[in-house]
Amino acid sequence: MATHYDAAIIGGGIIGLSTAYHLAKKNVKVALFESGKVGKKASQAAAGMLGAHAELEKPGVFFDFARASQSRYPTLAEEVKEISGIDMNLKTGGILKLAYSKEDIESGNQMNRLDSVVWKSKEEALAMEPSISESILGASFIEDDIQVEPTKVCKAFAKSARLLGADIYEYTPITAIDTDSAAITIKSQNETFSADQLIVASGVWSGHFFQQLGLEKKLYPVKGECLSVWNEDIALERTLYHEHCYIVPRKNGRLVIGATMKPGDWDEEPTLGGIGAVMKKAASMLPAVTRMKIDTFWAGLRPETEDSTPYIGKHPNDNRILFAAGHYRNGILLAPATGSMISDLVLGKKVNQEWEDAFAIKDKERQVI
Amino acid sequence: MATHYDAAIIGGGIIGLSTAYHLAKKNVKVALFESGKVGKKASQAAAGMLGAHAELEKPGVFFDFARASQSRYPTLAEEVKEISGIDMNLKTGGILKLAYSKEDIESGNQMNRLDSVVWKSKEEALAMEPSISESILGASFIEDDIQVEPTKVCKAFAKSARLLGADIYEYTPITAIDTDSAAITIKSQNETFSADQLIVASGVWSGHFFQQLGLEKKLYPVKGECLSVWNEDIALERTLYHEHCYIVPRKNGRLVIGATMKPGDWDEEPTLGGIGAVMKKAASMLPAVTRMKIDTFWAGLRPETEDSTPYIGKHPNDNRILFAAGHYRNGILLAPATGSMISDLVLGKKVNQEWEDAFAIKDKERQVI
Amino acid sequence: MATHYDAAIIGGGIIGLSTAYHLAKKNVKVALFESGKVGKKASQAAAGMLGAHAELEKPGVFFDFARASQSRYPTLAEEVKEISGIDMNLKTGGILKLAYSKEDIESGNQMNRLDSVVWKSKEEALAMEPSISESILGASFIEDDIQVEPTKVCKAFAKSARLLGADIYEYTPITAIDTDSAAITIKSQNETFSADQLIVASGVWSGHFFQQLGLEKKLYPVKGECLSVWNEDIALERTLYHEHCYIVPRKNGRLVIGATMKPGDWDEEPTLGGIGAVMKKAASMLPAVTRMKIDTFWAGLRPETEDSTPYIGKHPNDNRILFAAGHYRNGILLAPATGSMISDLVLGKKVNQEWEDAFAIKDKERQVI
Amino acid sequence: MATHYDAAIIGGGIIGLSTAYHLAKKNVKVALFESGKVGKKASQAAAGMLGAHAELEKPGVFFDFARASQSRYPTLAEEVKEISGIDMNLKTGGILKLAYSKEDIESGNQMNRLDSVVWKSKEEALAMEPSISESILGASFIEDDIQVEPTKVCKAFAKSARLLGADIYEYTPITAIDTDSAAITIKSQNETFSADQLIVASGVWSGHFFQQLGLEKKLYPVKGECLSVWNEDIALERTLYHEHCYIVPRKNGRLVIGATMKPGDWDEEPTLGGIGAVMKKAASMLPAVTRMKIDTFWAGLRPETEDSTPYIGKHPNDNRILFAAGHYRNGILLAPATGSMISDLVLGKKVNQEWEDAFAIKDKERQVI
Repeated sequence: MATHYDAAIIGGGIIGLSTAYHLAKKNVKVALFESGKVGKKASQAAAGMLGAHAELEKPGVFFDFARASQSRYPTLAEEVKEISGIDMNLKTGGILKLAYSKEDIESGNQMNRLDSVVWKSKEEALAMEPSISESILGASFIEDDIQVEPTKVCKAFAKSARLLGADIYEYTPITAIDTDSAAITIKSQNETFSADQLIVASGVWSGHFFQQLGLEKKLYPVKGECLSVWNEDIALERTLYHEHCYIVPRKNGRLVIGATMKPGDWDEEPTLGGIGAVMKKAASMLPAVTRMKIDTFWAGLRPETEDSTPYIGKHPNDNRILFAAGHYRNGILLAPATGSMISDLVLGKKVNQEWEDAFAIKDKERQVI
Repeated sequence: MATHYDAAIIGGGIIGLSTAYHLAKKNVKVALFESGKVGKKASQAAAGMLGAHAELEKPGVFFDFARASQSRYPTLAEEVKEISGIDMNLKTGGILKLAYSKEDIESGNQMNRLDSVVWKSKEEALAMEPSISESILGASFIEDDIQVEPTKVCKAFAKSARLLGADIYEYTPITAIDTDSAAITIKSQNETFSADQLIVASGVWSGHFFQQLGLEKKLYPVKGECLSVWNEDIALERTLYHEHCYIVPRKNGRLVIGATMKPGDWDEEPTLGGIGAVMKKAASMLPAVTRMKIDTFWAGLRPETEDSTPYIGKHPNDNRILFAAGHYRNGILLAPATGSMISDLVLGKKVNQEWEDAFAIKDKERQVI
Repeated sequence: MATHYDAAIIGGGIIGLSTAYHLAKKNVKVALFESGKVGKKASQAAAGMLGAHAELEKPGVFFDFARASQSRYPTLAEEVKEISGIDMNLKTGGILKLAYSKEDIESGNQMNRLDSVVWKSKEEALAMEPSISESILGASFIEDDIQVEPTKVCKAFAKSARLLGADIYEYTPITAIDTDSAAITIKSQNETFSADQLIVASGVWSGHFFQQLGLEKKLYPVKGECLSVWNEDIALERTLYHEHCYIVPRKNGRLVIGATMKPGDWDEEPTLGGIGAVMKKAASMLPAVTRMKIDTFWAGLRPETEDSTPYIGKHPNDNRILFAAGHYRNGILLAPATGSMISDLVLGKKVNQEWEDAFAIKDKERQVI
Repeated sequence: MATHYDAAIIGGGIIGLSTAYHLAKKNVKVALFESGKVGKKASQAAAGMLGAHAELEKPGVFFDFARASQSRYPTLAEEVKEISGIDMNLKTGGILKLAYSKEDIESGNQMNRLDSVVWKSKEEALAMEPSISESILGASFIEDDIQVEPTKVCKAFAKSARLLGADIYEYTPITAIDTDSAAITIKSQNETFSADQLIVASGVWSGHFFQQLGLEKKLYPVKGECLSVWNEDIALERTLYHEHCYIVPRKNGRLVIGATMKPGDWDEEPTLGGIGAVMKKAASMLPAVTRMKIDTFWAGLRPETEDSTPYIGKHPNDNRILFAAGHYRNGILLAPATGSMISDLVLGKKVNQEWEDAFAIKDKERQVI
């Protein structure tokens, strides 16, 4: 007899784990299937900068969703630490989004008008962080854009979900899905499970399941290459950001530096060229990095959708099936709100209508947001 | 338009790579699809001991096939080195299969009667390898059981196949196979290919494809944990073997030591208990290992079938589809003969009838050999 | 002109760093010279168990000194975190000293009579830590024997000392010492320094400086081999201890396991035999470790003196020269009290007379304590 | 009683090991003392390019010595392989010294007139190595500038010396030298040895021994940062060289790339800035490296003298003491001739007078060569 679950999740990255946690908290009998180990791949590769402003820049539904997700982190961190004993290492300090040119300043103007953003002159920015490059013209300071340690977030969600009753199956790739009966049948190499509802949260590898489940939605990898260095020299409290590159200071003195954007590259290892480019960019933001010792380097594949908006919602033709994939550069940031929204949908609760529309899996093009 | 191939191989371990090489050599237009990088997983984890006698012990069809495969290595090594410049690091020296008890001696008697095996008394064995344990009663010496470096064998096959025209796609998991048309359709995440014939060679992960292709054949992982040490002290020319454990001396002074057998364990990392057990066994064969420095440790999943015999041959109901999987502990040993046999089947050539029968994928039980 | 210091320290392990910190706090102009990087070697190899009871067992001057040092840690941790921002990761929970035999129980009786120690029956011990071996007869529970992370302690001392004005010279081996003038001259490869007072704190490498400074005190290495594993399975709050072996649970789920004792071995890398022995011992205390994943392994050289008591005090014939070396298994534990005592001696303050006598560098044998 | 040797060597880098080998071959009873492990530090960091021409450029005594040393490698490699079984992995192919400007061409003119050097036009160079940068104007091709693997050379010398009777003491820093008696007394931490002759070969750390032995010769570190990548794409047979940077292709597909030159830096770890600079330089020689996967990175300290010429010869005031140090960028290249020359001096044989003069340790300035 197949073991039966209320809900089954495919994918043990940060989105799947957040979803498992949110469902288990509501006493849903949930299983999560991961082909390798949980919390690896893109989730592990992320820097953990919760850059709602830095990354998204302009107001709208997506920004609103991101801000809501970001604002859940402090409470969530306490909640899962209480359950699991694991600290997400949430670190405040904010982000300084550096401007080197008039174009940089102009492109930041819309963001700068938000209450949560303060424009700092060159002198003010250097007073805050004396080690940043003297070539800047100024910087937008976003105090709310905090950071977490993604591997800790994943561990904390996984352990909390387990302690709340979720079953997490590692090294268990799903090889077949049968939706013909009332309960969905899910097969791994050697076992068969059934579930009332199924959530696909496999990051860039979700395309395969969209296909299997009759939808022509593709996901594209955008490879990001990163490195980290040990800072024993200088004070750096805030994350530095410019044109999708960032330097994130960890509590233990490590600086996490990223990232390239290489669309269409499925290879999960960094190249000399990619790491060289990130090094150069980092030195242009924080010249002192050139004197620092290299810790390590790595890469991850961000899951990008055709219109750069994640798929969060139900299968258009089978409402037992849900998707939570395509979070691109924002998986860590969006994990709390995504997990919570999927949990509400599974339980038949009402969710924010604007969000539901914006992230819906539709047959035709969505309006880009 | 889908790119078309004469033959497509799923799986870039040593079996898939040997098959790709043998087909490319015959001018077959061949593609190999690997979900990660070629030559990893079980192929990389292997020690490379070509232990036709040590592992198989008794004569029969399987032993015959293994000996045939083993005997191809020297020529094959030269051939691919010529093409690719890569050396398989074939090392002679043979294997000493140690006997510690009367039971060990008795169980080796059948093997010892073979021309290729010579029984050595304790004194003779210690004269050959003065560092082995004084607790032995004697040893079977098998001069033909040589060794190669599996990662080099894989690299050599891969590069040679490429140079002979094969297309090798890494990071390309196959997500769907359609056998309804004359040409088989093979889909990856983002591309579609077609092929006249399809070979499944995905090791323990082949079960999934058997299932998809309508066959109820399962593959089981048997996890093996290994470690290596640096030998700067003692002379050791021959591989030592006892009860599925071995110490393989590499040319560069590294000793490769393995392996546990943990059936049903899909986890690809070694545990403290497994590595501890291998260390203990190694010390009982070669006491000097306790003084050596540890290099590293790892694990691999050997693909085991229900009757411990690999599947090499055609789909019983669709002769465009072939399988080469389930080589258990003997993937490196059997790669040459397997690649050659599959190549012959693809080209419609006659193959050894006994082998074809022994390794056939049948609906009912095969006679265990 | 040689740069002049009030006090110069040779050696950047935990003892030298604690001394630098305590001196800098008192506004002494201090330099520390380290031939490599600070906080490495034996200091980095230590598990950080502050086992005043577990290691010392019987009351006396040494135990008294150890308890005094241990009790400084909580305040010290806050103090240096305030200055440096670095957390020593002090973790409470205490130590369970396991007893497997009547001999174990008897040898613990003297310790068990202390107020700080509570004897727990087998049932009580298993109720506290359900995963420990069922073979125990009981355990001594020492709540005060807490732990820190040695690398963090070293980093925190080093950064705090620097911020308080100390100069820390890494990669600066001292090649000559000249005590003929009023100020002591200290030469590195390419620079010359002078100092009013000199402190030798080079661990097992201090023997060389004793010799150079006219004293026939030798230091012996006692090599300790360790490993760590990842615990994702079981709850373990307390450090487990038996016959100089221990399992220390870190906050992040890592268990640090040690250690062998190999006197006279100067080699700083672990051997297969040493790691195998530690694994076996760990499994006898906590059977679940056999299922855990190995993180890494390493070794360190503990600095042992002829009478197993550290040298902390002045040169018998030259009171400008001080020694703080030979802390054997207890460097982390004794660092606060040692640094403080040396600081007092440098400043001409009165120190505890019993301690001064016990750790004095005398020509004749000291009374073993 | 102190163990007595005919000759004692301090330093187990490539120079000390070559000297030990050459002395042991002549039946001299020799000991080598190394503070850590043999064959590490600068010897391990080297790429192994035997660039007599590429590095030295102009004829003269030094060039002559370098060419003599280089020409010994093929015979030496066979000789030590015969003894030790270890292959130095000598690889032919030669060096292409790239010219990007008229200045490059002019500065190479003197070298190009040598019989061993052939000027290649841009077209000819690209025909030889199609992957090199199209920005070159041409290249000097030096067929004799071969390569070896430095770690293998060290292992081969060490094992051969041992097998010929040398005693090699690792983890044995020398803490005192006494030259007052007829036999020189050498002390380590815990043992005393005596020797008729003493050879100092401690690389950049030799300055200390010069000082102790009454000579005011200093050695300066010139830090070099390197990295290696895996080449699976392109053919590259020859070492590429430009302005002290190089790309050395190993037999196994690894490209070794170096190196920065940072005078006065004693820190043995690479920085982000250093590795970034080497990456950039590599891409300017071989654009395809940007697509390659990084293997690892490291640094070493080259031992530089005041006049950039090594010290090879006797102490001016005590002919029982010899030095072989300060080989800067050329330690691997010069090891055979240096070991042989020191061996001859120890045995009282005549050596090439020009070389003896050029490398002599004199009180006054040597004529720069």
